[in-house]
Amino acid sequence: MRVTIQGQTRAVRTVSYDPERRVVELIDQRLLPHRFEWFHSTDYRETAQAIQDMVTRGAGAIGATAAFGFAQGLQQFTETDGEWEHHVDRVFDTLATARPTAVDPVNAMRTIRAQLTPSSPIAEQQARAVRLAQAFADEDVVHCRAIGEHGAPLIPEGARILTHCNAGWLAFVDVGSATAPIYTAHDAGRSLTVYCDETRPRLQGASLTAWELAQAGVPHHIIADNGAGWLMRRGEIDLVIVGSDRVLGRTGEVANKIGTYTKAVLAARHNIPFYVAIPLSTLDWDLESGFDIPIEERSQTEVTHLTGVDEQGASHCVRVANPGSPALNYGFDVTPASLVTGIITPLGVLSPQELWTRRAELGGPVDGHTGS
Amino acid sequence: MRVTIQGQTRAVRTVSYDPERRVVELIDQRLLPHRFEWFHSTDYRETAQAIQDMVTRGAGAIGATAAFGFAQGLQQFTETDGEWEHHVDRVFDTLATARPTAVDPVNAMRTIRAQLTPSSPIAEQQARAVRLAQAFADEDVVHCRAIGEHGAPLIPEGARILTHCNAGWLAFVDVGSATAPIYTAHDAGRSLTVYCDETRPRLQGASLTAWELAQAGVPHHIIADNGAGWLMRRGEIDLVIVGSDRVLGRTGEVANKIGTYTKAVLAARHNIPFYVAIPLSTLDWDLESGFDIPIEERSQTEVTHLTGVDEQGASHCVRVANPGSPALNYGFDVTPASLVTGIITPLGVLSPQELWTRRAELGGPVDGHTGS
Repeated sequence: MRVTIQGQTRAVRTVSYDPERRVVELIDQRLLPHRFEWFHSTDYRETAQAIQDMVTRGAGAIGATAAFGFAQGLQQFTETDGEWEHHVDRVFDTLATARPTAVDPVNAMRTIRAQLTPSSPIAEQQARAVRLAQAFADEDVVHCRAIGEHGAPLIPEGARILTHCNAGWLAFVDVGSATAPIYTAHDAGRSLTVYCDETRPRLQGASLTAWELAQAGVPHHIIADNGAGWLMRRGEIDLVIVGSDRVLGRTGEVANKIGTYTKAVLAARHNIPFYVAIPLSTLDWDLESGFDIPIEERSQTEVTHLTGVDEQGASHCVRVANPGSPALNYGFDVTPASLVTGIITPLGVLSPQELWTRRAELGGPVDGHTGS
Repeated sequence: MRVTIQGQTRAVRTVSYDPERRVVELIDQRLLPHRFEWFHSTDYRETAQAIQDMVTRGAGAIGATAAFGFAQGLQQFTETDGEWEHHVDRVFDTLATARPTAVDPVNAMRTIRAQLTPSSPIAEQQARAVRLAQAFADEDVVHCRAIGEHGAPLIPEGARILTHCNAGWLAFVDVGSATAPIYTAHDAGRSLTVYCDETRPRLQGASLTAWELAQAGVPHHIIADNGAGWLMRRGEIDLVIVGSDRVLGRTGEVANKIGTYTKAVLAARHNIPFYVAIPLSTLDWDLESGFDIPIEERSQTEVTHLTGVDEQGASHCVRVANPGSPALNYGFDVTPASLVTGIITPLGVLSPQELWTRRAELGGPVDGHTGS
């Protein structure tokens, strides 16, 4: 996407890699929306640390970062590192353990490693890893663009769209999932406006999605999460598009940032279409029930404290809640298929029920299990 | 209620008046939950300013503050103030315009003024205003206690209760409305726990309700507003009790802090009882539709900025949202009667439909209009 920083506009990706200089370049999302800065890593261990420290976040973005970090680590091999295969293991494990609950880094590196020929010369394997990592990142963009093409026709002229959290290009290599139909429709000249749920506790909507939309010139307003229901009741929202951390291929259930379920319940009550935009890598073909999805209980301080900048630009972490009062902070929730109008995928818009019947095209199991 | 500050426990009210020293004493709610301090006003103009500056807030609390401020202003009369009647007008208008959209200050002062005899000696009128203001405040407490008595039986042993915003004793003279059944049940030894919606944007749940409940020793957790739906889906909430700014006597519709409607929709989906606790002064017998209730669009900065304290106790106002992104901030929403299980009043628990049929007892119109 194009960003304008201090009057200069340029096209950027969330993550990229320069194999000559062996530098992984990441937008430092910890500083947004207050500062735009690049984070440069010259060592795979530093790249792993960047994943762990949330320099970058979002399934697609950390998958590509791990892919590049893997290629970077392989390029860094010297004879003092011992045996090549051990080095490959070490790079893999270092990046895989940076964010233990995320599946994308591991999947990305497995895909690359499976295509290396251990018997071929090291230099050849190194070059191939670089090409495969680049292809992995490019494919992420292709998939997001396809989501945009399939999703844009769902957005009528003048549409008022609600989104939750950030499933934008910052969460992928480029374009994003929930934002892809919005960018595609906007680029085609369609008039639209977006309501960004601020998305407490971490405020990804107010900080990241609003920043993205502002950069792209897409009209938008930030709203408190409490505001969406009333806007729907006033007839001021036409459709909802969100991303997802995991969609169950067997049931169509959708795990996503806490609060997503609430918006789905509200949308159903007001007969407002509720769409979930995902690449195929988000589909989980194993779990048989949404209640089996592990829901992370996150730190209380995400609820009790907030970080922002004062008028002088200085950052402060402040307590806003009553000292001593405990907080309960589930990070995600699960929306049943009955509340989901459609799943926008790179292959088209499917009903939640179609995921299983069309599992062969979608990369699902081919052994004919019927689900639960 | 009893508060414990620096190891000392004492019973306090949100607002009180010492007619000897002519001092209105208010809990300075702008400083909670970080500091507990009294605000003392020795002049009715200062009392009006305190209402305007949100030193105190909540229908019952500002009604009583205006009542005391009115008595205070009358006591302050000296011959340099000109004619007595003009002085009474001036005091009334100063306090009435402090919070123009609120109806409670005006109603409180009208009630007092209507019972003064303009022909009687000034000293007698002054003394009578003091007694009437004190009676007004005491009656607020009596009403809240009655809400507690009627509401407590709705709370089963072991109940997990969701509340939104602050309709606690800080919003009244004492006891509160939504919190009254909770305090009554807790004092009777019933086991219960409360989930406090943090209530963005102003966070009254995380700051005021959590502070109140902690002072009273009531088990509770703060949750992000996004968390309530998921807790309901997990079966972890047994009932919802909220307060209200205005309940329509003709339709049973409930205006309250933004986000209330969302919780009512969620409660209905999960067959969880949704109660609204109010004194009779909250009933509006004039409006014929909830869509006629004016909904205040409040400052964008309530969404984009937050104030809290750092580890050293210093207060900071920080921006959390993307600079330049506009916010939309409706302060209140309206919940239809169909989503309300019962209205807990000082006279008992009524269905929303019963308000109109029992309007005579509830202080409604007696001319037999049928509503629309």
